[in-house]
This record gives sequence, C-alpha cells and structure tokens, in this order.
Amino acid sequence: MISPLYMQRAIELAKQGQYSTRPNPNVGCVIVKDNQIVGEGFHPQAGQPHAEVFALRQAGEQARGAIAYVTLEPCAHFGRTPPCANALVEAGVSHVVMASLDPNPLVAGKGQAILEAAGIGTTVGVLEAEARALNKGFLQVMAGGRPYVRLKMAASLDGRTAMASGESKWITGEAARLDVQHWRAISGAVITGINTVLADDPGLNVRQLSGDFSIENVVQPLRVVLDRQGRFPQQTQLLNHPEKLLLVGTQPTVAPAVEHWPNMALAQLLNELKQQKQIYDVLVEAGPTLAGEFLRQGLVDELIVYLAPTLLGCDARAMFNVSLSQMREQYRLQLQELTQVGQDVRLILTPVAP
Amino acid sequence: MISPLYMQRAIELAKQGQYSTRPNPNVGCVIVKDNQIVGEGFHPQAGQPHAEVFALRQAGEQARGAIAYVTLEPCAHFGRTPPCANALVEAGVSHVVMASLDPNPLVAGKGQAILEAAGIGTTVGVLEAEARALNKGFLQVMAGGRPYVRLKMAASLDGRTAMASGESKWITGEAARLDVQHWRAISGAVITGINTVLADDPGLNVRQLSGDFSIENVVQPLRVVLDRQGRFPQQTQLLNHPEKLLLVGTQPTVAPAVEHWPNMALAQLLNELKQQKQIYDVLVEAGPTLAGEFLRQGLVDELIVYLAPTLLGCDARAMFNVSLSQMREQYRLQLQELTQVGQDVRLILTPVAP
Repeated sequence: MISPLYMQRAIELAKQGQYSTRPNPNVGCVIVKDNQIVGEGFHPQAGQPHAEVFALRQAGEQARGAIAYVTLEPCAHFGRTPPCANALVEAGVSHVVMASLDPNPLVAGKGQAILEAAGIGTTVGVLEAEARALNKGFLQVMAGGRPYVRLKMAASLDGRTAMASGESKWITGEAARLDVQHWRAISGAVITGINTVLADDPGLNVRQLSGDFSIENVVQPLRVVLDRQGRFPQQTQLLNHPEKLLLVGTQPTVAPAVEHWPNMALAQLLNELKQQKQIYDVLVEAGPTLAGEFLRQGLVDELIVYLAPTLLGCDARAMFNVSLSQMREQYRLQLQELTQVGQDVRLILTPVAP
Repeated sequence: MISPLYMQRAIELAKQGQYSTRPNPNVGCVIVKDNQIVGEGFHPQAGQPHAEVFALRQAGEQARGAIAYVTLEPCAHFGRTPPCANALVEAGVSHVVMASLDPNPLVAGKGQAILEAAGIGTTVGVLEAEARALNKGFLQVMAGGRPYVRLKMAASLDGRTAMASGESKWITGEAARLDVQHWRAISGAVITGINTVLADDPGLNVRQLSGDFSIENVVQPLRVVLDRQGRFPQQTQLLNHPEKLLLVGTQPTVAPAVEHWPNMALAQLLNELKQQKQIYDVLVEAGPTLAGEFLRQGLVDELIVYLAPTLLGCDARAMFNVSLSQMREQYRLQLQELTQVGQDVRLILTPVAP
C-alpha cells in the first residue's frame, strides 16, 4: 500500500541537504518493506551519491520486493554516478513512488521508462507540490526558465526601510535577521546594489543557521554587487571572501580573486548566472531602487517581506522606488504564507499576473 | 471543583451582548450544580436585567448550593435592578467565581464583600485577561482613564493608504471591510476627519455583521467628524442618520438633528465624549493626518492594521503623516494578534511606551 507519510519522510530527508547540494537538487528517498522503513537516504552534496544509492545501501537485501519513495524521478543518465533508475532495478524493488517527474521535458519520464521496462510499477504525483517546493530554482531552470528570484525586504509596519538619512539598524529583530540566513543559504547568489554596500556594509554570507546544520557544509552564495559607476569600496566585509564576490558594471579591479562582469540588464544577468555559474536560486537583498527595478521588470518570483511592529513615519524611505499614479497600475500579490518570526511578521507572496 | 471551562462559557455568553449593551459592559454568568450547567445568562442591553438574573432565573431551585461563574464582580448597588450580589445570596449559591473585580477602585470588592458576609465563598481572577478583553473601554474609563481608542488603518503591503490622487477604492478585500464592521459595532463613537468625508463619503455605521447578530439590536456608534473649517457637505451618507452625527469645529448648522460641538483638542474631545455621552470605546477611521495626530498625542490604545497583498509604490500616500528623522524617535509597537482575513492580513498592536 502506498502512503504519503513515506513521501513526507523522504521530503524531510531531502531537506537535510538543502544548504549543501547546490547546484544539484535536494532529493530524499525511503525504501519501505512490509510497511517498515528499511532504508533512508538523501543527496548530501554535489559529487556525492544520489539519495537512492544511500537508501538502497542501507536497505541491502531487504530492498528486494520493497517500495521505493523518491522525491524526484530517478535519473536515467550516466553522470558522476550510474543511473539511479538502473540501481533500483538491480536492487529488485517492486514499485517506485515519485513525487514528480524530471523537470526537464527532454528527460522527463526516462527514469520511469527504465523502471517500467523492467516490470517495476510506478506512481507519480504523491505530495508533488511539497516536493517541488524543495527545488524551486532547479525546477524552473530545468523547465527552461530563468533562476527563481526571491526578493527579500525588511520594513516597518508603515512600509519604510530606513530613515531619510539612511539610518536603518535595526528595524527587524534578531529572529527575523536569523531567518534571512536560511534564504541566503538556499540561494546560489545574493544580489545587491552598490548603495546598500556603501550604506550598510553587509556581509551577505551565511553565518548562522537554526537547527543543527553545520555552517562548514553550506555552499556559500555568490555575492553579486551591481556597481555601474565604480564606487566599490576598498574596505568592506564583502572582501573577506573575495572568491565569492562578483562585481557587475564598470569598475576598477578591486582584488585579484574578485570576478568582474560588464554592465548588463538584470534579465541578462540572471541568464548569465544560470549559464555560467549554474545558479538557479537568486536572493535579492537590495534597497528600494534596485528592488523596485526587479519588480518593474517582472523578474520577481517570490517576495519575502519582514515587517517590524514599528512606525517610521512619512519621511522615511519607501519599500520600492516604483512610481505609480493609478490603482489599476498596482502590483497585486498573492499571500502564500504568514508567520510571526520573533516580534516581526513574515509574509511570503507571489506576484499576480497583471 | 472550580473549572475555567465554565468561565470560558460565561465569556462566550457575554459576547452575545457585545454589540448591544453599550454603555453597559458585557457580562456573562453560568450557574453550575454537580458539574452540570443549570443556568446561563448574559446582559443583553442597557435597561434589561444583568447576566446573573437571567442565569438564576433559569437555574431556579437548582441554584441552591451551586457555583456561580460571573465574568465581572456582581454589582452591589441599586440601579435599574437590585444588586446582583444580593440576588446570588438569596438564591443560595455556595460559591461565586469572578473573572475580575469591579474596575472602579471606589466600588471594587463591594459585591464580593456582600457575598462573603453571607458566608458565600468567592474566587477572583479566573480567566481574568480574557474577561477583561470584553470591556476594554468600560474598564479603562471606570478605572479613571479616558475612552479606549482603537485606530484602524487599511494599507497596502508597502504602507500606502491611497494613490497620490486620493484614489483608494479598494485596497483591502471584502472580508477585511466586513471585519471592520465588528470594530464599529463595539464602539460608542467612530471619529473621522472632514478630508475622509469629502474624499470617500463613508457611512461609518454598522451595516453587516458576521455571525447571527441582528443589525437591529446593534447600538449604532455616534459618528464624529472633525471639521475645523466648516467644509461639511450638504450631501453625504452621514446625513442618512443625522441623530447619530456630531460635528466638531466651527461650521454652520447642517441639519437640525446634527449635534455641534466647538473645536477642541483631541484629548478634550475624548473626555467630553466620555462625560457627556458615556462613550468608552472609540474607533478612529481617519486619513494619515488625523491618524498621525492621535499617534503623536499618545491617544492610541490599540492599532488595528489591515494590510492588503499589493504594492502602490513610493508616490502613494503614507499611512501616518508623522515626520521623524531618527530611528530613536520611532513608534515601537507590540504585536498582539496576527490573522489572515480573506486575502488580507490583520495585525492588532499596542503602543510601547517610549
């Protein structure tokens, strides 16, 4: 009997790799024999075996006749490891339950076909939405799209991100700032603007995570700074890890390890990050001008807004420097999640097509 | 045995009068004999009997030796009805559980004293906070304070209440607008400014309530319009019920039934509403200027903020026309409640003393 509880467990396992598998997706696998879990695995890191391999190893001989639950269709290609679909066939499982097929339409169904050809039954679509949420960027890119862009903003209840002077430390509380580390840690790149660098000198790296994830295993995101006028400072926290820094725009060479790209449109930048760096999840942590630019160009897949229970008044800085004059021009959003984080409120929203 | 569950039931009963007892408080009563509820009552309307009377009537002879749960200390004075404390004595209850004592320090404990003098045991403080929440304005005024002021705002996620042109219909959705009716219905007065009247022509009365409350039983709030320059229009929804309209400021007589008061400071206005009208709960539904004025003068007890999942941009109108230049001047709030209402978010907050 197929139960979504085992897929739920596979999803939990997949999450153990959420900060360390990039650019690979997070995948979890559970092998179930006679309603007992006999093997569990997840993909921990690029270059390491896939989830199915770990789970089959643990199951050993018990895999024969068992049901395998996988959060993503088992691979059908020879890469760093032999195809997982073949491994499942060899182990003699009787049925494979997949949350979803491979996102790449050119490959989707190939793993399933190997299994079916070997006489192994398959089921697709169990907890599909939950499983897909593990790999939003990977799935969007593999389906032919651009990287998944999360735009994070922290503001006061009256929608202000800083005083007119630029003073902004701290609007949100410690819990919200810790929560932001999660979004950085699941991102291949964090994009910001030079004004934010000059005003706040942010590190934009992952320094602390809730739960028992070790910072050492985190694939740190590439920090991307848009600096069209060459104002990047000689002293900044970002230079602590120059090998993870990319400056975009016309600027002098800052440090040997820092990569430089020419100025380009935001959509092209996203595309280059995908093509050249295999970056599928992008977090934008920027001020109201750059944030507004991402919005205006329709490049935002998800807004993550932290609102602090405080009022900064009508002279303080706006959340988005987007100028609208009529209600019909408004950016409508869909609320996906509402959570209290410490004393602050976190809203996760997605844009509604106009 | 005393159980908070019965007090919980008494609180639920009290709520049945939440829109109709003004200026009297909401009170509920449950009589419990051998762990069975034998009588229930609530105060339905000024001029009608108190909660205890209804509950004792229903209990009849079974009240003898029973435990009475009351959300507020039974009254000890002869008013429209004889003191409820005496009624409980006569009915022969063995014990009285009160959520809280009378809020008036000059009277507090008198009802309890009558019971104790008759040999009836008393317990005070069961679900006190929940019971006090029923009568915030009444309790604050009876304790010597000013009316309880709720400031309601509806804004976009980026903290804007209207486009620069004034266009604002509708930012929040239908569910949020229905929810606002609740706050009007528990208020003795709704205060707004002349600019809101001219821009939106709001009715500010209670037209619809969720649940099965009948609009006919609602004590409609007094609509108070601040109009310092005599700009009140001849045609407006507010004139549909002129007997529930009070204009404050220098203006010509609008209609015979409309009451006029001279211009006065907001704190004085609140005091006059209390003294002359027995108004203990005030809802401010105003634009950013008047709302900001209430905030600046420290006259807000509670903010009720509806945020819609939409962005109106940096040229749209602010939530509060309060001008601050440094973070240390910010108005810190404490989040008390966070709820999704339809597609919108409702936050209830209280000011934090600076």
